[in-house]
Amino acid sequence: MTSARLMLGNGLAKDLAADTARRSEDFHQRAGRRPCLATVLVGDDPASVTYVRMKQNRCRQAGIESRHVALPDTTSTEELVAALTALSEDPEVDGILLQHPVPAQIDERAAFEAIAAGKDVDGVTMHSFAAMAFGLPGYDSCTPGGIMRLLDHHGVDPAGRHAVVIGRSPILGKPVAMLLLARDATVTVCHSKTQDLPAIVRTADIVVAAVGRPEFVRGDWLKPGAVVVDAGYNEGNVGDVAFDEAMSRADLVTPVPGGVGPMTISVLLDQTVRAAFEHAGLG
Amino acid sequence: MTSARLMLGNGLAKDLAADTARRSEDFHQRAGRRPCLATVLVGDDPASVTYVRMKQNRCRQAGIESRHVALPDTTSTEELVAALTALSEDPEVDGILLQHPVPAQIDERAAFEAIAAGKDVDGVTMHSFAAMAFGLPGYDSCTPGGIMRLLDHHGVDPAGRHAVVIGRSPILGKPVAMLLLARDATVTVCHSKTQDLPAIVRTADIVVAAVGRPEFVRGDWLKPGAVVVDAGYNEGNVGDVAFDEAMSRADLVTPVPGGVGPMTISVLLDQTVRAAFEHAGLG
Repeated sequence: MTSARLMLGNGLAKDLAADTARRSEDFHQRAGRRPCLATVLVGDDPASVTYVRMKQNRCRQAGIESRHVALPDTTSTEELVAALTALSEDPEVDGILLQHPVPAQIDERAAFEAIAAGKDVDGVTMHSFAAMAFGLPGYDSCTPGGIMRLLDHHGVDPAGRHAVVIGRSPILGKPVAMLLLARDATVTVCHSKTQDLPAIVRTADIVVAAVGRPEFVRGDWLKPGAVVVDAGYNEGNVGDVAFDEAMSRADLVTPVPGGVGPMTISVLLDQTVRAAFEHAGLG
Repeated sequence: MTSARLMLGNGLAKDLAADTARRSEDFHQRAGRRPCLATVLVGDDPASVTYVRMKQNRCRQAGIESRHVALPDTTSTEELVAALTALSEDPEVDGILLQHPVPAQIDERAAFEAIAAGKDVDGVTMHSFAAMAFGLPGYDSCTPGGIMRLLDHHGVDPAGRHAVVIGRSPILGKPVAMLLLARDATVTVCHSKTQDLPAIVRTADIVVAAVGRPEFVRGDWLKPGAVVVDAGYNEGNVGDVAFDEAMSRADLVTPVPGGVGPMTISVLLDQTVRAAFEHAGLG
């Protein structure tokens, strides 16, 4: 039985981060300050605390200053919007990351929209989404942006190929569908209401699984030779695709962990440094 | 040979316009002024002049005031943006329509983005697009919004069905794909780079043709019993679908003219009156 090649993200993410660190230092030399990412955390959900800390550590390694804003889990939408508006107007802040999910009393969309488009380095605003959809300048949602870089790096040209995206969240399924479409793939978006999902996946040259259900996509759903991107990350370090089954059928497969995951923060840092250059008019 | 049923837009568009006229009069009584649509035309392209005149006439019939801004075909992006910004800030204007296409020297996207989201009753801004994609309050692109109303009126529930959209323009293909996805269809977007388009169209329960090529979609591309929405309008009153062939295979087919076409302006007027109520706080 043949075995697929692995589409690894670790090395690529590291290379991207090294390039970001070089550009960050260049910015420092030219602008007299470091690029700055503001991280905003509401409450103290342990997973969110860990994610924010990882991002801060990665900022430090790339020579990016991080400014942290911690808000209590009783924060109202108005208070969070006010904090994000202040950061949007602060000339020393280049990028803003609102760690999500936010507590249930908060209108998450209203909070996202308080992030200035020019500082939306996490790609969560409506403006960023439309920019991805229309092929306009802007910041990608980080995981979709990472997926596109992973495909490029492994020589996968989406043009004319059929890409099936499973999942339709505003920061993963929908934006990755738009990015693939902008790169001339024929794109199908599937979700929980899709009928006969396996039959649709079987027509895909490129599958992006973003459902958040462990080993949901089975090997016999895949067209032999397909490219499989697993954007899931479930309990027990398991992705959304049955990995061993996919390896015996596909051409290229992202492992979990070590595939899509490492790309996300690297794209965030890359976009932060890009925002810094743009704000300083050093583009 | 069986024949499909016609999905006619004329009657529905007329009913919608009558409802809009009633709400417009109600607004007039309560607000002491009529709803107002600003139409902006750059240059004097005969087709554009005709379209704008049709919209003004339809406004009048619905009791909507229309204010026309005519700009020379030498207008710069900056001048057009300034005119649209002034209308966006004018408290007596409820909706803004920029007739497109605009002359080549103008950055059309920059012009669209000068329209305030709350007055974008033609659904052309990035904000409106993302609102359609995310199921948030906002104004639909008029033709896609008209297509959804046409489907609803004819009892076509997109949920769980496979919709294939042919075309990916920012005001037709992409937004109608997003509206169908928001209504739980499984959605495939096809375009000029799509390979084996007939095979993909054959899997569709709902086909939306928005390519602008006369009789491009052939009858033998259709799954028997499909719902066929022809959003094309080409020279000689011909749509994007080979009509007779579609009628002998599909279940429901929009004719051209008299299908999708009449819906577009009715949705524009409907959204203008809705904007008036919202601006006046009478929602």
